[in-house]
Amino acid sequence: MTDEKELTTVEKLYVGVQLTRPLLRNITARVEADLEGTGISVGQRAILDVLLLLGRATAPEITQILQLKRQFVGRELKELINNGMVQTELNPMHKTARIHRLTPMATKIIKEIRHRETESFTDFASRFTADEIDGFYRIQMALNEEMRKSWK
Amino acid sequence: MTDEKELTTVEKLYVGVQLTRPLLRNITARVEADLEGTGISVGQRAILDVLLLLGRATAPEITQILQLKRQFVGRELKELINNGMVQTELNPMHKTARIHRLTPMATKIIKEIRHRETESFTDFASRFTADEIDGFYRIQMALNEEMRKSWK
Repeated sequence: MTDEKELTTVEKLYVGVQLTRPLLRNITARVEADLEGTGISVGQRAILDVLLLLGRATAPEITQILQLKRQFVGRELKELINNGMVQTELNPMHKTARIHRLTPMATKIIKEIRHRETESFTDFASRFTADEIDGFYRIQMALNEEMRKSWK
Repeated sequence: MTDEKELTTVEKLYVGVQLTRPLLRNITARVEADLEGTGISVGQRAILDVLLLLGRATAPEITQILQLKRQFVGRELKELINNGMVQTELNPMHKTARIHRLTPMATKIIKEIRHRETESFTDFASRFTADEIDGFYRIQMALNEEMRKSWK
């Protein structure tokens, strides 16, 4: 199964899909290593990414986008506020739901991390053609869609 | 970020990599659904796959291939033996390490599951060109390799 020359197209697809589990483990380890010394956890990093993208968001909006447990997002948000990474303000539309946004310090940290990552991804991307990366992207999207519904 | 036309190649790579976490969740749910009624867990399924591939293996060999915790593999193997899915024999080379192999019943069940999966993967693969799937496969392999070492 590991000799590339002997793999059929369907086998390559199968092996590629099976790599998802070890890949996630390696990605998580990499993200953790990149966050070393910042005091930010992998879960907090995900929340900071959403706030960088949206500018401001309520806890339910963050929960929806990340598809994580509400309790987890609430707990991590609280810690980010305590650590001076996130600031909150009252939501004029809904008195109960506060709006969260990055502090200048957090914006600086997360932008630096993203910059380093973009450089690494750019280096990595240069090893493949645009068509290959486009294929990878579309297959990942389609797999996600297919696995969500029944294959029967 | 979701409008495909506006994504650069590096952004497609980034988004594709970010899909790894939800994809694994969807794959696990799909494997679980496919195992419904068989009494086999997702972890046990992985062990049965290894035994189908290798014919026979010791617990340390299975642990090595799956990169799972030794205790986890030991516990799942014990349950598979209790459920009549795996049979063991003494290893003539090492008196302490037993050799495991599938029972005829387990071979039949796992082959049927694999057959259904292969049909689904064949259907899915028909939506992409051989080059696209080859790109997907090589990018998954290369990502796994890159994430394992430092990106610095």
